[in-house]
Order: sequence, then C-alpha cells, then structure tokens
Amino acid sequence: MAAAVEDYVLATYLLHGNVNYHKKAHDIAIGLTVGTWTELTKEQQQKMMQHKGKVFDIHEIDSEPRKAFITIGYPITNMTPDLPSILTTVFGKLSMDGQIKLMDLELPDSFIAQFPGPRFGIKGVRNLLGVNERPLLMSIFKQCIGLSLVELDEEYQKQIAGGVDLVKDDEIFFTRDPNDVVQRIKQMEKRNRELQEQSGKKVLYAVNLTGPVTELTERAKRYVGEGASCLLLNVFPYGLDILHRLAQDPDINVPIMAHPSFSGALYPSAEFGVAAPLLLGKIMRWAGADMTLYPSPYGSVTMPKEDSLKIASHLRSANKYHVRAFPVPSAGVYPGLVPLLYRDFGNEVIVNAGGGIHGHPQGATAGAKAFIHAIEAVTTGRSLEEYALQSPELYTAIQKWGVKAT
Amino acid sequence: MAAAVEDYVLATYLLHGNVNYHKKAHDIAIGLTVGTWTELTKEQQQKMMQHKGKVFDIHEIDSEPRKAFITIGYPITNMTPDLPSILTTVFGKLSMDGQIKLMDLELPDSFIAQFPGPRFGIKGVRNLLGVNERPLLMSIFKQCIGLSLVELDEEYQKQIAGGVDLVKDDEIFFTRDPNDVVQRIKQMEKRNRELQEQSGKKVLYAVNLTGPVTELTERAKRYVGEGASCLLLNVFPYGLDILHRLAQDPDINVPIMAHPSFSGALYPSAEFGVAAPLLLGKIMRWAGADMTLYPSPYGSVTMPKEDSLKIASHLRSANKYHVRAFPVPSAGVYPGLVPLLYRDFGNEVIVNAGGGIHGHPQGATAGAKAFIHAIEAVTTGRSLEEYALQSPELYTAIQKWGVKAT
Repeated sequence: MAAAVEDYVLATYLLHGNVNYHKKAHDIAIGLTVGTWTELTKEQQQKMMQHKGKVFDIHEIDSEPRKAFITIGYPITNMTPDLPSILTTVFGKLSMDGQIKLMDLELPDSFIAQFPGPRFGIKGVRNLLGVNERPLLMSIFKQCIGLSLVELDEEYQKQIAGGVDLVKDDEIFFTRDPNDVVQRIKQMEKRNRELQEQSGKKVLYAVNLTGPVTELTERAKRYVGEGASCLLLNVFPYGLDILHRLAQDPDINVPIMAHPSFSGALYPSAEFGVAAPLLLGKIMRWAGADMTLYPSPYGSVTMPKEDSLKIASHLRSANKYHVRAFPVPSAGVYPGLVPLLYRDFGNEVIVNAGGGIHGHPQGATAGAKAFIHAIEAVTTGRSLEEYALQSPELYTAIQKWGVKAT
Repeated sequence: MAAAVEDYVLATYLLHGNVNYHKKAHDIAIGLTVGTWTELTKEQQQKMMQHKGKVFDIHEIDSEPRKAFITIGYPITNMTPDLPSILTTVFGKLSMDGQIKLMDLELPDSFIAQFPGPRFGIKGVRNLLGVNERPLLMSIFKQCIGLSLVELDEEYQKQIAGGVDLVKDDEIFFTRDPNDVVQRIKQMEKRNRELQEQSGKKVLYAVNLTGPVTELTERAKRYVGEGASCLLLNVFPYGLDILHRLAQDPDINVPIMAHPSFSGALYPSAEFGVAAPLLLGKIMRWAGADMTLYPSPYGSVTMPKEDSLKIASHLRSANKYHVRAFPVPSAGVYPGLVPLLYRDFGNEVIVNAGGGIHGHPQGATAGAKAFIHAIEAVTTGRSLEEYALQSPELYTAIQKWGVKAT
C-alpha cells in the first residue's frame, strides 16, 4: 500500500556541514515519525507504514562549505491541521540539531483546506474601500506612545485628509485598558464616517490588538462590535495559531493586518531558522492574514529582493482554497520610490509609509497627497516629474527625497 | 526628573557590522519609543521624557569583524507586563534591522512581580514526588505515534517499573480528540496509583497539551480535572504568552513542563535571533515553566556548555518573586554520563533519557533501574563501576555505553 504525495506534509531544509546527507535525511524521516524502523517486526512495520516519514529529495550543492537541500515527507496522519502541530513535527527537535534551516513547506490540499486563509484578501479589502484600479496607500502613525486621544485624533485627521486608504497604529503601541482602545476606535471610526460623508472616501483604521493571548478573541469581537474596521496583530510575539483562530472566527468580520515584528529573530541567518518567504508569505496566508507587512527591498530594514518578491508571490498566487492577500513591503518608502515599487510589485500592493508621509515639509496631509499623486502618475503611465507639474505636494517631495531610477 | 533604572526594561544586544554603534544605540533608544526627540518642543520633550528610551551601555569588542554589546532601557510605561509586549517593543522591528541578536533582558522588580513564575518549581515538584535527596529521573516514551492505548499502557508500565519519577509524552504526539487524551490520562494515572499503592513510589505523567491555542486553557483544566498529574507544552510553536496564562490559572494546579521545540530556529546563530540562556532560562521561568527541557552539552543535539549551564543558572537562581525551576538538560544521556551530569548540574536537575532507557539490552525497566543506580552511586560518592558490582542493570548499561570521564 504505497502512500501518495497527498498524504504528506513536505518540508524542505537547507543543511550545512560535513555530514552524510543521505543518512541524515533518513534519520530525520524515521526519527521524527515512527522513531525506529529496522528493529520492528514485519507486522509492526505494516501497521506503522502510514506513520513513517519518507525522504522525497536530496540535492547536494557543489559548494564549499558543503550544503544540501533535502525534502522530507511527514504523514499528515501524525499531525493536526494547525501550525503548532506542523512546526513541532517538522522543526521542533530538528531546529536544535545543527546547521539546519527550514526553507519551505508544502501542504497537501486536504490540509490546506483546513486552514482559514484570508477572509477578505485583496478583493475583499478593495471592496471595503471601493478602490480597484491602483495600489492602496497606507500611513503609519508617526508616534502613538504618550499621545492623548485628542492628539492621536489630530494626527489621524491629518493623515486621512491626504487621501490614504488605511492608517495603522504603531505596532509598539500597547494600551493597558481595552476601554481606552474602544474610545480610540470610536474616535477614529467617527472620523472615517465624517470623511466618507464629506467626500465619499473610505478609510480602514488598523487598531493594534494586544493583551493576554487568551483574551484576544474576546477583545477582537468587542472591538469589531464597537466599530473597528481593521485589526493589527503582532503575529510572532503572540504565536501563529492565534492568527488562525482570529481569522476563522465568523464574528471577527474585519480584515486582519499581520505585522512581522520579531520575525527577524527567525529568518535572516543562512544556516538556521525559517526562510522568510515561507514564514511571511505562505504561513501568513494559510493562517489568514489579509495584509502582511514585511521588509521592502528598498529601505534601511532590508531583505534580499528575491525574498521580498517571493513573499509577494506566495501571498498573491492563485490557489483553490484561499483568496489572494495583499503584500505590504515596508520601510524606506517615499514618493519617489513609487515607480520602482510599482515596477517590482505591480498593482496589487499596499504602499506603506511612515517617515515618507510625516516627513513631508508641508506635513502629513501633503505627504499623503504626494504619494497619491505618485500612484496616479505610475498607474497612468506618466513620470513623477511630469505629474509634479500639477502637484505641488509631489513636487516638494521630489525636491526633498528625489526619484529612484527604475 | 531623572528616570531610575527601576523604570526600564533593559535589553542587551550583540551587534555586528561596520556601523557607528553610538549612533545606532541612540537611534534604537529613540526610534523604538518616542520616535523623534530633537524635533520636539521643550514642552513636548518634558511630557515625553517618561516614554523615552535610554542608552545604558555601549561596549565595543576589539575584534575583526567589528562587534559591540549595547544595552538599551525601554520605559516600562510603554509596555504591558507580558512577553508579547516586551518582545515587540525591544525586538519587534529591530529583529529585522541587520546583524543584531537579543542577548539578555532585565526586568525591573515591579514587572517581574507581574509574571507568574513557576507554581511548583523544584520544591513543589519534589514535594509531589516525595523525593528530595537526589536528581530526578525522567523517561520519554520511545514512541507514541501510531500506538494504541493498550500499547502505550504497556510501554508506560515498563518505564515506571524501573523507578523513574516522571514520564513524558513524545512532543510530536498530537491527538486529535481530547477524549482520547482523557482516556490516556486515566490509564496512566491509574498505573501511577497502582504503583504508589504497591510500593509507595510516586510518578508524574506529563501529557502533551495540544489543540487550538484558544482551547488550551479549557483542555488543560479538563485534563487536570480528569486526574492529569503534569502537562507538557511545546511553548514556542504555541506562543510564549499561553504558557504565562496556563501557569497563572489557579485551576491548572499541576506542574508544567516546557519543551524547547522550534527554539532552535531562534537561538543558534551568532548574529541573529535570541540567546539561549535568555530564551530557555529567564523567559521560561518568568512565564511559569516548572521544568524546562533544553539541549544538554553532551548529546547529538548540542549546545555550548556555557549556555547550557547558564540556562540552569537562570532557572535556579534565587529571586524574590519566583520559585526555582528544574533544568532538564536533554539528549544523549545514558547511565555512564550521570557522573558528568551530576558534576555539571548538581542535585537540582532532572536526568532525562529516551534511548538511554529504552536501548538497554534488558529493556526499559532495566534501563530505568540502571539510571536510578547510577544516580544512587553519584549521590553517595561511589563510582559507577563500584556500584555496578551490586547492580546487574547498571553493569549491562556500562558494558553497552561505557562511562564518560568527569
């Protein structure tokens, strides 16, 4: 009774070091599933076959020092369809076993189908905003810590007056009392309604969801009940499974924005950890992030361009179970970078700026306008310099930051 | 109004690379707290002072390539007393900002006091077992996946017949239906009661707590209600905060054993991630692990000895808020290693063996006995060779694995 590939979670690892990769692959496949094999009787082997791991591929790279990619299949019957179970199985003990990095995971359809995926995704977020034809624009509060609600409200109004589609809390903004969060939501969402009444423009406000992990679901429901239009979650510090549970809860019917905070503790090493495209692309989408922030290839917080594009590809590729999600390549983004961002990521992207909006010489409203005009320029095939002739905000932004050549 | 050190969480980082460490430290202290400083008015500065980060130390190492340790203080008023808040603040965005590793955290007393710490710790676990004078012995199921309850029961009986103090599930054992877990608990705890009635010997069975993170608290309460004597948790895959919440729940009144699965994705790199002594020592104890498994310096899954000892030191050092917790240095442990383990870790340790018990030529019961005799030898100042004259089990174990020189 041969097992089919649909019965396995496939994990691909990068190994370094002077080891026998065939023996290592075999040891992993047995050690992390049935424990032993050759010592079992024929009868026991027959019974255990469905639980036994399998080496799918060994690909040694001709390099110095030596390295190899190996792919191991773990029977899905050994796991439950959730990230803690999968990660414990494929990279629990193994993560501590020398120079080994988890590069990729492939789940069979039957397993993928049990993950929620994004509820809204690109299409759903666009529908909420009524914006279909261009990249979205998001603004981050320049500062949240220490500001009163009145001050936050002022900052909020400046940002939305410039035409942004989304505004997010700073991810380091921890509010002790959920009642204060509710007050903030009510105030910002009131501003959103006012703006919509005045101009028809819709905005989503991503409020930082914090607190004991055991209370996040209730808090999220309460915030949504009080009118929150979007939630921000620091996925890694809270744990991957809570994103899964929030995303699958029918009462939490607003988009979820995933922040990559702490993920840099996991992905940058060549020898250890988990590859960024898996961590911030595939896994975020399985677990249900509608929008995922991650380091752009342009800013001070950088990531190799190849990885940054691969994350976007994992978030946006067609698949039959999960809708497509928005990549939000962040850090170091100013209006003059929009042509490059558009060339690299296309239309289905969220342009996310903090300093590039707040640092505009005429303030955040002008900063947001400069971005909107830059986006209008690239989506209508014009150069920023040409468009700046009719946009004093963009003109000033170009004077300050320049235009990055595409 | 100068801020005192008690007002800060101190984070120490190791930085690599050709950067200006003074500027970098300053940028971190400002950027991850108040955002900007010199642009603020005097009045704004006064208001923001309590939220402003502070550079506490910069210590450049004379090395090639260049590196430095820097210590930044983050005002506790910016955070809530939980690990997601602290980690997001001190290593959220920063984790993605080049070659930087989080080496240590120091929490002020006011913050530490708000973490649960271990409920039982060394003393509590010893009280439950009635064993005070020697290192404890734990056995791991050789295999759990694919076994029926009857088979698991047989394996369990073999292990406890040899005199082990604790038995733990394999951490990769994921049981879909909590009712099956309850059946397992009932069976193993029945064996524990039988053994105690026969011989007075008490045993703790650490059952693997799995499932959606949002259901772990309820499941844990149910398992405890059904008689579970100990819980095993894969802390990193589920998230650090759930350990905190389980440990502080008064209804979950059994010891919690923390498994380090997936932590190897975080600690081994010299340039990135989080140092093992912080991650598996300090943080596990704050969050409430009574016993923490981590790689011993002896086995195939190794860790530098210095780190392994430092973890033990963090778990066991006296502090006024949290009781001392058990280190469980694991992997590659066989009876002949007990003298070395005892020399390195002393009495307050759990000797944990899988292959070293199950691989005994006369089976798991003899394997456990060999360990108990090895422990009796070292705690009474005798050599294993001498003690083996009266212990055929230890004799056989020495024949198979030898004795590691101390």
